[in-house]
Amino acid sequence: MHIQDLETPSVLIDLDIMERNIQRMQARCDALSIDFRPHIKTHKIPDIARRQLEAGAVGIACQKVTEAQVFAEAGIADIQIPYIVIGATKTRRLAELARRVRVTAAADSLPGVEGLAAAARQAGVVLRVLVDLATSIQRTGAPPALAIDLARCIDSEPSLHFGGMLVYPSTVDSRPALLEVLQQLDRDGIAVEAVSGGGSGAALEAAHFPELTELRVGTYVFYDWSSVGKGWAQQSDCAMTIAATVISRPDDDRATLDSGSKALAADRWADGHGHIVEYPDAHIHTLSEEHAHVDLSRCQHKPAVGERVHVIPVHTCVVTNLHNQIYGVRNGQVEVEWPVAARGLLW
Amino acid sequence: MHIQDLETPSVLIDLDIMERNIQRMQARCDALSIDFRPHIKTHKIPDIARRQLEAGAVGIACQKVTEAQVFAEAGIADIQIPYIVIGATKTRRLAELARRVRVTAAADSLPGVEGLAAAARQAGVVLRVLVDLATSIQRTGAPPALAIDLARCIDSEPSLHFGGMLVYPSTVDSRPALLEVLQQLDRDGIAVEAVSGGGSGAALEAAHFPELTELRVGTYVFYDWSSVGKGWAQQSDCAMTIAATVISRPDDDRATLDSGSKALAADRWADGHGHIVEYPDAHIHTLSEEHAHVDLSRCQHKPAVGERVHVIPVHTCVVTNLHNQIYGVRNGQVEVEWPVAARGLLW
Repeated sequence: MHIQDLETPSVLIDLDIMERNIQRMQARCDALSIDFRPHIKTHKIPDIARRQLEAGAVGIACQKVTEAQVFAEAGIADIQIPYIVIGATKTRRLAELARRVRVTAAADSLPGVEGLAAAARQAGVVLRVLVDLATSIQRTGAPPALAIDLARCIDSEPSLHFGGMLVYPSTVDSRPALLEVLQQLDRDGIAVEAVSGGGSGAALEAAHFPELTELRVGTYVFYDWSSVGKGWAQQSDCAMTIAATVISRPDDDRATLDSGSKALAADRWADGHGHIVEYPDAHIHTLSEEHAHVDLSRCQHKPAVGERVHVIPVHTCVVTNLHNQIYGVRNGQVEVEWPVAARGLLW
Repeated sequence: MHIQDLETPSVLIDLDIMERNIQRMQARCDALSIDFRPHIKTHKIPDIARRQLEAGAVGIACQKVTEAQVFAEAGIADIQIPYIVIGATKTRRLAELARRVRVTAAADSLPGVEGLAAAARQAGVVLRVLVDLATSIQRTGAPPALAIDLARCIDSEPSLHFGGMLVYPSTVDSRPALLEVLQQLDRDGIAVEAVSGGGSGAALEAAHFPELTELRVGTYVFYDWSSVGKGWAQQSDCAMTIAATVISRPDDDRATLDSGSKALAADRWADGHGHIVEYPDAHIHTLSEEHAHVDLSRCQHKPAVGERVHVIPVHTCVVTNLHNQIYGVRNGQVEVEWPVAARGLLW
C-alpha cells in the first residue's frame, strides 16, 4: 500500500532511518564496551524490540509490569523495569514474571525493597534488584546514604539479589553521588555487577561516565522534534511523522489539520507542537483534541484544503501510546503495520 | 469490588455525580426549550451515551467518523459529526453510515461541500449538512459571506440537505455573525432548521443566545479541574478522579505518583497537572510519562510510600482516551467496568 492511501492521522515510521538509529546507538555502546538495553516505552511493539536485540542489545527495559508481561509473552527473555514498583498486586505479577524470564527490578525506599522481597519469597524466586540513585531531576531515587542502606538490605535478603545501581538520567553530574555509593559498597565488600544509566541525551555523555556498564535509551529509535531542539539528533534522524490532512483554511494565514492532542499528544517544544515537513515555516501554535491550529503567515506557499502533510511530533513516546497501530514505511510504501501491543498498559 | 482493590492508575467515575451532571444539563436545555446533544468525545462509551439519551438527549455528537461507527453499531440512531470531514475514504464511510442511522455532517469550504455531495451521490443517500460558522477561536468555520454561499450550494445540491448552522463555541460573541447569515438566508428563502451550538462553557450562556435550537456539550458529564478553574463547575461536580499510588518520596517536600502524562494527559491548568483530593495543598508541577512530580511543601500532612490518592485531572476528554477501561463507582464499590470502546479512533 502506498502511504498516500493510509487514512489520516496515521503514524509513519521511516524504516531506513529507524534501522540507522538502531545501528548507531548499538555501535556507540559497543565502542564504549557497555551493554545496550533499549527502553520499549517509546514504541511498545515487540517486533521493534526484536530488531533492537538482533542488532546487539542485551535485553530491554519496560516502565510498567504489564508492558513487561506483553514483551515476555512475545519471547523476550531479559527484561529490566527501571521503575519503582509498589503494591502487592504489582510486585506479585513482577515476581511471577521472574519465574519465566530474567527480570531486574528497582527500589529507592525500604518499603519498596520489602515489597519486592515479600513477593519474591511468595513466588519462590530470587529477584534481581537495582538501587535507584537520586539525580538532579528529583523524580525517584535514593540519596547516597539511603542508597547504601538499601544495597546492604537487598544484599542480606535471601529472596533478593543486589544487581547494582540505577541512574536516570545518567548525565555526568550524577557521577559524584554514584562514586560515593560505589566506594562505600566496595568497603562493605558488596559486589556491584552493573551500573545502569539511561536517557537519549545522557547517552551522548556516556564516554565521560566510565562507571556505566549499561545504557537504557528509548527515544533514539525514532527521535522527535524535542530531540532536535535539544541537540540530540538532526531532523534527518527523525523516523516518525504523523500524516495529517488540511481540513480547513479559516483565512489566508491559517490552516487547521485533522490531528490534535489525541493524535500528536499535547507536549510542546519551544512554542510549538511539532514541525511540518512540507511547510517548515508553518507554526503549529495550538492543539485542541482533534485539530492542530497552524499559523501560515511566514509561509511563501500555503497548503489547500485536502492536502496531506507530515508532522514530526514533539515527543514520540507519548504519540505511539495514542495510536492503535503505526506503520513502518520505505520508499513511499507501507512495509509493515504494527499493532501497538503495549498501548495503554499502565499497571 | 472495592475501589481500593483496583490497580493504579485507574480512572474512577463517581456515578452519583455523573448522573447529577447528566440530569442538570438536560434540565437546563429543557428549561430553554432547546435540544440537547451530548458530545461523546469525552467518554467514548456507548453505555454512558445511552444514559444521556434516556435522560432526554435527542442524539449524540461524535468528532470522528470511526467514533460514529462504534456508536451506530451500539444502536444509537441520531449522530451528528460537527467536524470537517475531508477525504474520499472518510466521506464514503460517512455516507454509508447515513444509510443506517440519521447522520448530520458539517462543512466550512466548497471542497468540503463537494466531497460530501459526491459521497452522498455515490451512496445513494441525501446527507444532512450544517454550515460551520467561524468564531473567535479561529479553528474551523466559514466567515458569514462564505457561510451564506455554502448554505446556498448545499440547498441546491440534490444529494445534500441543508440542516442549518453550526457554531462552536456558541458564546454570545458569535451571535452577530450568525444573525447576518440567518437574515440573508431568510431573504433567500432558505429554511434553517437548526442552529447547533456547543461547549461546556458556552452552555452557561445559552439563555442569551435565543437563536440556538440545540446544544452539544461533552465535558459536563465528568467535568475536570480546568472546568473548575474556568468557573463552569464546582469541585463537587467533578465525577472523574484517577486513583494513583505514591511510589517515591525523594525528600520531605516531594512525592512521586505512578501516574504521568500517559495516565493523566499532559494538559496543564494554571501551573499544575490536576488536583489531589486528599492533599489539596499539594502541587503536581511536572509530569513525565509515568510519573507525577508533586511538591508537598505547603502540606501539613504528607503521604507515605504506598499510599493511594485521587487526582482530579485537568482535561477529562483526553484522559479517557488514554485508558483501555474506566470504572463507574458508587459508595466505594465498583459498579461497572466500561471498556473505552471508541478509544484511539482518529479516522
